[in-house]
Amino acid sequence: MNWKSEILAAADRINGYAQVTPVMESRALGLDYPVEMKLEHLQHTGSFKARGAFNTLLSQDVPKAGIVAASGGNHGAAAGYAARALGHPAKIFVPEMAGPSKIALIERTGADLSVVPGEYANALTEAQAHEDATGAMQIHAYDAPATVAGQGTCFAEWEAQGLQADTVLIAVGGGGLIAGALGWLQGARKVVAVEPKTSCALNAAVQAGEPVDVSVSGIAANALGARRIGSICFDLARGLTSVLVSDQAIADAQQALWRAHRILVEPAGATALAALLSGAYQPEPNERVAVLVCGGNLSPDPLNG
Amino acid sequence: MNWKSEILAAADRINGYAQVTPVMESRALGLDYPVEMKLEHLQHTGSFKARGAFNTLLSQDVPKAGIVAASGGNHGAAAGYAARALGHPAKIFVPEMAGPSKIALIERTGADLSVVPGEYANALTEAQAHEDATGAMQIHAYDAPATVAGQGTCFAEWEAQGLQADTVLIAVGGGGLIAGALGWLQGARKVVAVEPKTSCALNAAVQAGEPVDVSVSGIAANALGARRIGSICFDLARGLTSVLVSDQAIADAQQALWRAHRILVEPAGATALAALLSGAYQPEPNERVAVLVCGGNLSPDPLNG
Repeated sequence: MNWKSEILAAADRINGYAQVTPVMESRALGLDYPVEMKLEHLQHTGSFKARGAFNTLLSQDVPKAGIVAASGGNHGAAAGYAARALGHPAKIFVPEMAGPSKIALIERTGADLSVVPGEYANALTEAQAHEDATGAMQIHAYDAPATVAGQGTCFAEWEAQGLQADTVLIAVGGGGLIAGALGWLQGARKVVAVEPKTSCALNAAVQAGEPVDVSVSGIAANALGARRIGSICFDLARGLTSVLVSDQAIADAQQALWRAHRILVEPAGATALAALLSGAYQPEPNERVAVLVCGGNLSPDPLNG
Repeated sequence: MNWKSEILAAADRINGYAQVTPVMESRALGLDYPVEMKLEHLQHTGSFKARGAFNTLLSQDVPKAGIVAASGGNHGAAAGYAARALGHPAKIFVPEMAGPSKIALIERTGADLSVVPGEYANALTEAQAHEDATGAMQIHAYDAPATVAGQGTCFAEWEAQGLQADTVLIAVGGGGLIAGALGWLQGARKVVAVEPKTSCALNAAVQAGEPVDVSVSGIAANALGARRIGSICFDLARGLTSVLVSDQAIADAQQALWRAHRILVEPAGATALAALLSGAYQPEPNERVAVLVCGGNLSPDPLNG
């Protein structure tokens, strides 16, 4: 796969559909070095997932039955939003653990939503049954080339906006976003994967030398709680730096973003920054660092909507 | 006053102290035209006020007694923050109506804080008594040249970031921010003043032909509730377009920013956008519009901090 050209094609495709998200540099986070940030939580439906969803729908023939997705919340909202924008029906299966804020967010996209008892795997089973029964197209949350190429546009966009950093820190769940980063950056900048200690499918795969199942829990689980890292990500991630952060460090980073900058994010959106604030990743002197702020769909919803 | 050169000097002065805030263009707000936005609520202490506070402290000799300010919340937090950053003591008088979120924000700057019963005028009386007794320097919230020049840097910065708009909509309280806009833009772009119907000191002054006292109330009163427009603003504002919005329109605009973009702001921060969403200001065909998102210190604090 020539990821650079796939990502450039995706960027052309989603231009005008996805939001160009702003960037900033902060010196107010209590660190003795500046941090570049891309505010990707301002993306449509509050996370980077809209990029992959639009790229998937715009690069393939969508059947009359529309699309189907299983999601812990953010991917389902993005798939529903993209489907509606492009005039396709959408069926989304979401596990109860997604929580009321994300469930309401999906409902507002106009998608046909089913809340499935239990965990994500149950929603995935239902989605596959729906695909088999109706012929709807399933949009994978992270382990499909069109999804990864879509997420990669985030990094092409950031470089065009003047990204300076030597090192980019990215939160990892199933690995679609970081795979897009690795596919685009191709070693030109160091990429650091940050996962919660309680949901660390990539770290476990790096340790084991192959993707393995992990148990998932903790405050970021409905966004980062993939049981097994995607194979596209794993293949791109060889030699990657992988660090882990505690739930407390994630909550502290949420507070820091809000207090310093009135940036309000969900736990997953603060996870990459948590690696810097907690010292889990310590840059070398003069190493310039950047953090992707990836998701803002927190619970409870502060405006109840 | 040569406002252009004052603002350029202020921009040099506050460079590295104030946050360069990001800009974006949205097509997701339910309007049939795009809206450029500058996310000035990501400024230190959550509003543009830090610009004027830094410019004031950096352009004048600060006495050993430090600074004193009376504030509905945002100005006091900015003055306290700037004073701390520059090593000066700060005494802030705040009326109870500022609310617990803003009071906690001022406390976190390390300022010596007194909460004064009743309304803003009482806090101002106390601040003047403190100035008289100690020789501390009072930083005016809006009606002083150094304050206005500092706020004007926001618009110099926005133009350097590629502002395209023909028309810029700005929320008005005492008029420091819009005075900075008028001083910088000098007619190069149309400026629209947006005020709550319940707190409209500029609109009343435009109607009366001179600054007059108004009563203030409503959801944005602790940020926009000036009893009388500043004289610097009034002198610059001749011929300005002035529109009013309801509290409901402001609340709806808060919801729209949060739902479309995970931008969470206080009522004052959504007031300029409310003029577009409610139709209080209707752009001509092909008129390009921009909205300054000016404050993010909402209550209750969604993270209790």
